[in-house]
Amino acid sequence: MICRLALAPTGANKLLKLRKAQFLLNTTIDILKAEVSEPLDLPEHGVTTVFVNLGNTKLELLYPLGVKSPIQNFLDKNKNGGLHHICIEVDNIDEAVKSIKAKKIRCLSENTKIGAHGKPVMFLHPKDCAGVLVEIEQA
Amino acid sequence: MICRLALAPTGANKLLKLRKAQFLLNTTIDILKAEVSEPLDLPEHGVTTVFVNLGNTKLELLYPLGVKSPIQNFLDKNKNGGLHHICIEVDNIDEAVKSIKAKKIRCLSENTKIGAHGKPVMFLHPKDCAGVLVEIEQA
Repeated sequence: MICRLALAPTGANKLLKLRKAQFLLNTTIDILKAEVSEPLDLPEHGVTTVFVNLGNTKLELLYPLGVKSPIQNFLDKNKNGGLHHICIEVDNIDEAVKSIKAKKIRCLSENTKIGAHGKPVMFLHPKDCAGVLVEIEQA
Repeated sequence: MICRLALAPTGANKLLKLRKAQFLLNTTIDILKAEVSEPLDLPEHGVTTVFVNLGNTKLELLYPLGVKSPIQNFLDKNKNGGLHHICIEVDNIDEAVKSIKAKKIRCLSENTKIGAHGKPVMFLHPKDCAGVLVEIEQA
């Protein structure tokens, strides 16, 4: 099950923009009556996040925070921002990782780590995932 | 509500690959027990589609079909494939488009068109949507 779709808009570090100028806030609040979270700084993960709750899934807006943000490279390559990754929830991440490795899909770390939302996660290599950065998260 | 997340894997026009080599089929079927549709050619839209049903949302795998596929340009720029667009369902697309235009978000056509799935759709300009190609679809 997909739990989140992470976007990386530009307007880095300008938190005022988070609530104002971006399409996804402008239109999803207005047209879809979506709930939008307050911006949350996660300095240990180098991002500021805002969640847009679309009912059946969530959009996660990611903004770089600090000097070594893991999304800065993406924003350097994608000047207008873009779709950064998808996150798929699984019931048993250890089983999932075992199965992924058995299929020769490369993981970006040897073991799961605690992700930005306090749960074990694993990132998979985009080249093995149809060009898409995929995060697997324990549900 | 998000209804689809469209990915454009490489392996164009090799339909055997649709059911075999790609990560999203390999892993989502196995780990997530997702339902995967048969490949469907949509020659009038220049794509072959495969849906992966994740319960709360769908992944749509898009493959170019024919010589003028609208996703060929994307695949030329993204050699490994990637996240092509997101599709958001709305209850009333005419109202949604009116609201979008009022916000000076550019639409890619003057009026809605019938999309690949038989419903009225409108595509929005990525530069006005945090770098993301967004499709609005009548629910």
